[in-house]
Amino acid sequence: MIVGLDVPAEIGMAEAEVQTPALLIDLDAFDANLAAMRRIAEEAGIALRPHAKTHKSVDVAKAQIERGGARGICCQKVSEAEVFVAGGIADVFVTNEVRDPAKIARLKALAEHARIGVCVDDPAAVAELAGAPLHVYVEIDVGQGRCGCAPEDAADIARRIVETPGLTLAGLQAYQGAAQHLPDRDAAMARVMDGVRTALAGLDGEGIACPEVTGAGTGSYAHEIASGLYTELQCGSYIFMDADYRARGGDGVSPFRHALFVLAGIMSRAPGRAICDAGLKAMSMESGLPLVSGIEGVAYVGPSDEHGTIDDPVGRLAINDRVRLIPGHCDPTCNLHDWYVGVRGGVVETLWPVSARGKVW
Amino acid sequence: MIVGLDVPAEIGMAEAEVQTPALLIDLDAFDANLAAMRRIAEEAGIALRPHAKTHKSVDVAKAQIERGGARGICCQKVSEAEVFVAGGIADVFVTNEVRDPAKIARLKALAEHARIGVCVDDPAAVAELAGAPLHVYVEIDVGQGRCGCAPEDAADIARRIVETPGLTLAGLQAYQGAAQHLPDRDAAMARVMDGVRTALAGLDGEGIACPEVTGAGTGSYAHEIASGLYTELQCGSYIFMDADYRARGGDGVSPFRHALFVLAGIMSRAPGRAICDAGLKAMSMESGLPLVSGIEGVAYVGPSDEHGTIDDPVGRLAINDRVRLIPGHCDPTCNLHDWYVGVRGGVVETLWPVSARGKVW
Repeated sequence: MIVGLDVPAEIGMAEAEVQTPALLIDLDAFDANLAAMRRIAEEAGIALRPHAKTHKSVDVAKAQIERGGARGICCQKVSEAEVFVAGGIADVFVTNEVRDPAKIARLKALAEHARIGVCVDDPAAVAELAGAPLHVYVEIDVGQGRCGCAPEDAADIARRIVETPGLTLAGLQAYQGAAQHLPDRDAAMARVMDGVRTALAGLDGEGIACPEVTGAGTGSYAHEIASGLYTELQCGSYIFMDADYRARGGDGVSPFRHALFVLAGIMSRAPGRAICDAGLKAMSMESGLPLVSGIEGVAYVGPSDEHGTIDDPVGRLAINDRVRLIPGHCDPTCNLHDWYVGVRGGVVETLWPVSARGKVW
Repeated sequence: MIVGLDVPAEIGMAEAEVQTPALLIDLDAFDANLAAMRRIAEEAGIALRPHAKTHKSVDVAKAQIERGGARGICCQKVSEAEVFVAGGIADVFVTNEVRDPAKIARLKALAEHARIGVCVDDPAAVAELAGAPLHVYVEIDVGQGRCGCAPEDAADIARRIVETPGLTLAGLQAYQGAAQHLPDRDAAMARVMDGVRTALAGLDGEGIACPEVTGAGTGSYAHEIASGLYTELQCGSYIFMDADYRARGGDGVSPFRHALFVLAGIMSRAPGRAICDAGLKAMSMESGLPLVSGIEGVAYVGPSDEHGTIDDPVGRLAINDRVRLIPGHCDPTCNLHDWYVGVRGGVVETLWPVSARGKVW
């Protein structure tokens, strides 16, 4: 591969030489986030299964398992699971419903090579999964109003799973994605716990043991730990963080550092503004504009598809200067890039492919 | 390649069998848009150089040249130009400033294989391009406040281009991107024309001929044609259209049909809502939510990273139903996918790679 043509950097290169825009991991912050989440889980005595939808990287997943205390990973799509299993991850939970017959066939094929988990929220879906050694979780809607059955309906689905040849009832999936980004999560998280208790009571009433209760995100995990109901955390964004999580702040977010940046280059200037080469195709902006890291008095104010307009009233930025931008939303930003450029001390130390980039089906 | 694993479809497959989410081209609408823009340019006696940043596809670019009346294409990044030249496009204009030395070296290398155009908006940049047979356009800021020199400064840059060995002065780049999405463009477009006239007068005052004036988008091209100042149109979105262009509507937009869809599958249901498998990683939503095409009484209301919540009060959508979504913003949506699935009469007719997907540097 040719640097600048196929890859944005090579190992040993200075950060300032990286071709822009590029997705940068600050490896010191990344290592600190790995260690912080491992400590949180260990101190709470709870298992950790980070959500790999955030990073879509086999290398990051391996770091989470080998150094970060994770038992396995989560992902959202069958195509992601295929990439992670092919990359050597032995324990992959698709935290989602899979109903399309072709996707179910692919999921069943994967279960021959790894421990594969999947969710069900409809009694009719259980039979579709029969015949493969899948670990099946009943997803309950704990307030997001997206997927998931009503908590009181969980026991019926669990019973069907137990009775279906090949399938193993793995537990309850109970995640409130919308609560991750609330400034005050207490009321939303109380509702989550009510839902979990209702579902657990239902299973108990049918005499069905529930091996796991799994869920939680980077914004809410302190609540799931405090509840005493959960056995496993699925936090994903903790590994990188983003501007939205920083802005929402509050409980549970502060132990983590910004580890993910989009490195941009300045390619045009005019009085009061500098134009950089990173726009909507380099960063997802539906959760807000990126923040400029480490340079006072400038602000990314104008996104275009391939450009970003930076207010720069006193002219701090010159042509070919590099700026580190903190993306508004880490998950869809990572999905725009082919490579993570890992830097430490101003030098490129790793190049990791975004292995499941674009794997949306 | 295995369908569902590496590609979402195979030729001859029914649309309903395509693995979702997938980027769909309605080939009848696509052909109609090709023909409509060709007719508009021919009737106006103006050249057409469509912006390939919209589609990033060698196949679409070839259709635009071979069937759509285009003389060549535009793109925004050196890495895109590399893909198009490698794909056999002989005339590629990078409608952008290129200042990084490594990128300039790549651009110069490309100029040995194709007619390569590039923009300059800074007198200091001209010398950086010396030594390769590049076709250089002076970009003027005609009101967007992004890149581009002041119109009165164009003559100085043009003179430097003329005096620099190897370089050819190709003309003026004058594009007002922000005006494309205004409900009333008249005032903004009048300012564009004032800028073009000022720059042309400046060149004329120095005795410098201006071969081309190029610019225009799908929202504004009627103004550029009516001005009599432009020699070339750079419209890009016309080939696909999107929900934002439809909403802004008005002059110049109506000849074109929606040709681009994200095909999504329903994978969960609850009273009043259906959940589909296409979210922020399948569609760019910073310009608005997608529209559901062809089904009355439903609306895409809730985007997540991998899901979309569809209001469905009367239960029109069932598990595994397919819905065609019209993306809010076509350009960054195309950049999320690896394949275009071209359909006609409900059957897959073409599979085109999104050749320059992710080429942002």
